[in-house]
Amino acid sequence: MKKFENFSEWFDEILFNADILDNRYPVKGFAVYKAWGFKIIKNIVEILERKLDETGHVPMLFPVVIPEDAFAKESEHIKGFSSEVFWITHAGDRELDKRLLLRPTSETAMYPMFALWIRSHADLPLKVYQSVAVYRYETKATRPLLRMREFLWNEAHTAHRSWEEAEKQVMEAIEIYNYVFKRLGLSYLVLRRPDFDKFAGAVYSIAFDAWNPDGRVNQIGTVHNLGENFAKAFEITYEDVNGVHRNVFQTCYGFGLSRVIAAIIAQHSDDHGLILPPDIAPIQVVIVPILYKETAGEVNAYAKEVYEVIKSSGIRVHLDETEDKTPGEKFYYWEMFGVPVRVEVGPRDQRERKVTLVRRVDLKRTVVSLEEAVTAIKSLFTEIMRILEERSNSTLKEFIVDACDQSALGEIVKLNRKIARVCWCESVECAEKIREVSGGEIRGYRVDVEEKPEKPCVICGREAKRVVYVARAY
Amino acid sequence: MKKFENFSEWFDEILFNADILDNRYPVKGFAVYKAWGFKIIKNIVEILERKLDETGHVPMLFPVVIPEDAFAKESEHIKGFSSEVFWITHAGDRELDKRLLLRPTSETAMYPMFALWIRSHADLPLKVYQSVAVYRYETKATRPLLRMREFLWNEAHTAHRSWEEAEKQVMEAIEIYNYVFKRLGLSYLVLRRPDFDKFAGAVYSIAFDAWNPDGRVNQIGTVHNLGENFAKAFEITYEDVNGVHRNVFQTCYGFGLSRVIAAIIAQHSDDHGLILPPDIAPIQVVIVPILYKETAGEVNAYAKEVYEVIKSSGIRVHLDETEDKTPGEKFYYWEMFGVPVRVEVGPRDQRERKVTLVRRVDLKRTVVSLEEAVTAIKSLFTEIMRILEERSNSTLKEFIVDACDQSALGEIVKLNRKIARVCWCESVECAEKIREVSGGEIRGYRVDVEEKPEKPCVICGREAKRVVYVARAY
Repeated sequence: MKKFENFSEWFDEILFNADILDNRYPVKGFAVYKAWGFKIIKNIVEILERKLDETGHVPMLFPVVIPEDAFAKESEHIKGFSSEVFWITHAGDRELDKRLLLRPTSETAMYPMFALWIRSHADLPLKVYQSVAVYRYETKATRPLLRMREFLWNEAHTAHRSWEEAEKQVMEAIEIYNYVFKRLGLSYLVLRRPDFDKFAGAVYSIAFDAWNPDGRVNQIGTVHNLGENFAKAFEITYEDVNGVHRNVFQTCYGFGLSRVIAAIIAQHSDDHGLILPPDIAPIQVVIVPILYKETAGEVNAYAKEVYEVIKSSGIRVHLDETEDKTPGEKFYYWEMFGVPVRVEVGPRDQRERKVTLVRRVDLKRTVVSLEEAVTAIKSLFTEIMRILEERSNSTLKEFIVDACDQSALGEIVKLNRKIARVCWCESVECAEKIREVSGGEIRGYRVDVEEKPEKPCVICGREAKRVVYVARAY
Repeated sequence: MKKFENFSEWFDEILFNADILDNRYPVKGFAVYKAWGFKIIKNIVEILERKLDETGHVPMLFPVVIPEDAFAKESEHIKGFSSEVFWITHAGDRELDKRLLLRPTSETAMYPMFALWIRSHADLPLKVYQSVAVYRYETKATRPLLRMREFLWNEAHTAHRSWEEAEKQVMEAIEIYNYVFKRLGLSYLVLRRPDFDKFAGAVYSIAFDAWNPDGRVNQIGTVHNLGENFAKAFEITYEDVNGVHRNVFQTCYGFGLSRVIAAIIAQHSDDHGLILPPDIAPIQVVIVPILYKETAGEVNAYAKEVYEVIKSSGIRVHLDETEDKTPGEKFYYWEMFGVPVRVEVGPRDQRERKVTLVRRVDLKRTVVSLEEAVTAIKSLFTEIMRILEERSNSTLKEFIVDACDQSALGEIVKLNRKIARVCWCESVECAEKIREVSGGEIRGYRVDVEEKPEKPCVICGREAKRVVYVARAY
C-alpha cells in the first residue's frame, strides 16, 4: 500500500487531487488552501469553536503584528522563538521606528491587553480564543500542512485566580480537544513533554501526538500551564476579595488546524483518495443516477426526488447531474474527495422505490427503501465513524513497540519507523543518548493513563522514573 | 444629540463600552476586536459567505505574504499600492533573499495561481472568495474601524471568458452586496468612481458609500471590472471551444467588514449605545426577571420557562440572572449592547402568564401571552428592521443637498458637512477645483438610477456630462 510505503508522495497526491492545498505558491512554506480543503477546515473550526463557546470561552481577534518590545518581555519566550520570526522593518519606502514581527503565537500580542482588562477577581477567569494563521520561519525542510511557515490554528488563552484553577483549566482544555479529535476519529497519545521540550515560557506542556503512516508523529495540539511566568513579565495582576493584589495564573492551548486536517487525511484515507468523517465532509452524500436511454427520464426524476428527501433532513447532499461522465467516472471522482456515502439510483432502484447506499470507508453496499433512506444514512454515518476510529486506534497500537534495550530502540525508531516505548531515568544525558541511538526524540509520558516503569532506564540502567515514548516527529 | 454633534467621541465610547474594539493595542492602526464586536462580525460573514456560496463562489485561503516580483507585475497596481505596503525583510537574524509584503489586497497573491489553474473554457468561470485581514500603511490619521492599518474584509475574485460575462458578474456582485447591506439595514449610494479614482489596475470601479453622522462617507464595498489588465500581466489564458488561446476577463470585489460594522454602529445606534439588526445580534433577546422578595421564586421559575420557550424556537436568547444588579441596571447594560428585544418578566406577567416585550430601537413596550411570545418577537424583528431601514434612508436623503453653484458647494460640504449633488463636465481640472472649493472629493455618479444633468458644470459652466456626489470621505 502506497500510503505506508511512500507516504510523502501519496500525501502530496491527495492534497493535489482532492483540492486540499496547492503547494506551488511562489514563497517557500506558504501554500493556498483550496475550496474542498478550506471547507473541511471551516467545518472543523465550527465544531471546535462551538465547544469553546459552550465552555465559557469568547472569540476575539488580535493583530497579526507584535511590537518588538512586547515580544521581548518574557525572557524564555523570546529565547524560544526569536530565531524563527518574520520581521517587518519597512512600510512604503520608510523604515519603521520600531520593528514589528508576525505572530508566531499570540501570548505577547494578548497579554499587554490582559494587563489592561484584568483589575479584580470579578474579571476572572478570562477565557479567550481566536482562529488565525501564525508564522514561523522553519529552517527544517517544509512539508505541506505538516510543517509550514504559515499555518492555521486555534489558540486559547486563559487567566485565573490560582494555580489550582489553572490546573483545572488544563484538564478542561484536554477534554475539549479530546472531544473534537474523537468526532474526527483521530488516534494519538496525550503526552506530557519532558522539561527540555516544553513551550518557551511554560511551567509544563502537554501535547497530542497523532500517528502518521511514515512513523513520524504529528503534534496536533498542545496545552500549556504558564503559571505566573507571563503574569510577572506583563504585570497582569488582580485585586482579590481581601483587596490584595496578586498575579494571575495562566494557561494557553493550541489546536493545529493545518496539522489536524493532515492527520485526518493521513490516518483515514486510502489509495483511492480521501476518506472523510461525515461531520466535516463538505458533501456528506452524493447521488449518482445510473442512466440508460430508455429509462433516463424516470430515473432522473426519481434521483431528484431522492435528493429532496435527503436534503430536507439537513444532510449535506449533492446530486451529480454532470452529463459528460459515466457513473463509473463519477464514483471514482467522489471517492477521491472522500464523500462518506454514495447513493446509486438506477432503473431497478427507481422501479422498486429503493436506493443503493455505498459507504466510502470500505465500499460496502446496502439497498434500502426510499422511506428508510435518511435513517439508514444516519446510522451509516455512525457506523463509518466507528470503523474509522477502530482502524486508526489499532494502527496506533501497532505503531507502539516496547524497547527493552538500546539496540531495540534504534531498530524500532530508525529502521522500522515506529514509536518506541522505553523506561527513562529523566536525566538530560540519557535523553541526549536516546536521541542519538533512535534518531528520534522523547515525546513525553502519558497523562491519560498512569504507566509505572517496570524496568531500569534503557540507557544508563539506573532506576527509571518514567515510561516515555520515543519517535521522530514533524 | 452627541451622535451628530460629536461623532468621533460618541463612536469611540460605543466601541469601548459595547465591547466592540479596543484601540489601545501598542501599534498604531492595529486594534483588538473584542468578543461582542467579533461575534457580530462572524454573523455578518456568515450571511455574506452563504450568499457567495449560493451564487457559485468557493472559499479558499491565500497566504498573507506576497513576493515582490508578483506584486510588481501589473504596473498600475504597484503604482497605486507601493507607498502603503508593509515589507518583511528579515526572518530570525537572516535577511531574506526576496522581500515579502503583507497583502494590501490579494490580486497579486491569487493571479499567479489562477494562471496555473485555468487551462480551458471548462475551467471558467472561476469564482473565489476569502475573508481575511489586509494591511495598508495609511499615512492619514488612523481611526478605529474606519481607517486602520489592519482591517478585515471579504474579497472575491472571478475570471470569465468574455467582457460580457465579466459585466454580468459586476451586476451579480452589486446584487449580492445590496442583499447583505439590506439585511443590515444600511443606506448608501452606489457610485461609479471617476476614472482618476478607480482601483489601481481596474477598467472601472463601483463603490458603496454609506452615510456617516459627521458627513464623511464610508466606503463599505467596492466592485471592479479588471478587464484583461491582470490577465495580460499574469498570463492568465484559456483555450476556447475552437482551440484558440485567449485572455480571461476578470472582476474583483471587496466587502469591508471593519467598515460595515462601523456603518452599522454609525447609522443605527443612539446616545444610549448600540442598536443591532436582529440578524447579526449575538443575543437577539434578553430576559430580565423583575424580582420582589415574596414572589421571587415563582417569577424566577417562570422566567426560566419563558427562556426555554424562546430558546426552542431557535432565537438567540439570554436569561440575565445576575444577582448583584437591579433590573434598571440590567436594562441599561443590554441597551448599551444593542440587544434588539428585552423581555421583562415581573410578578404580574407571571400571574397572567404573559411577557412584556421592549424593543431597543424606540423602547416601545408590548404585552403578549407566553403562547404568542415567539410569534410576537419574530414580527418585532421584522418591524425593527423596517424602522432601522426607514430611519437610515431618510437620514441619507437629508444628507444629500443639490449645489447649484460653487459657493453652495463649499457651504454644503465644508460648512454643513453634507453630501453635495452637482453637475460636472468630467474634466480633471474641474474635479480639482471641486476638491478645492468643497474640501471633499467627487465620489462618482449613481449606477442604480440614471440621473441626467439638467444644469451646466458647477465649475466651468460648460455642458455637464454627469450628476456626481461630492463629499469628504474616510
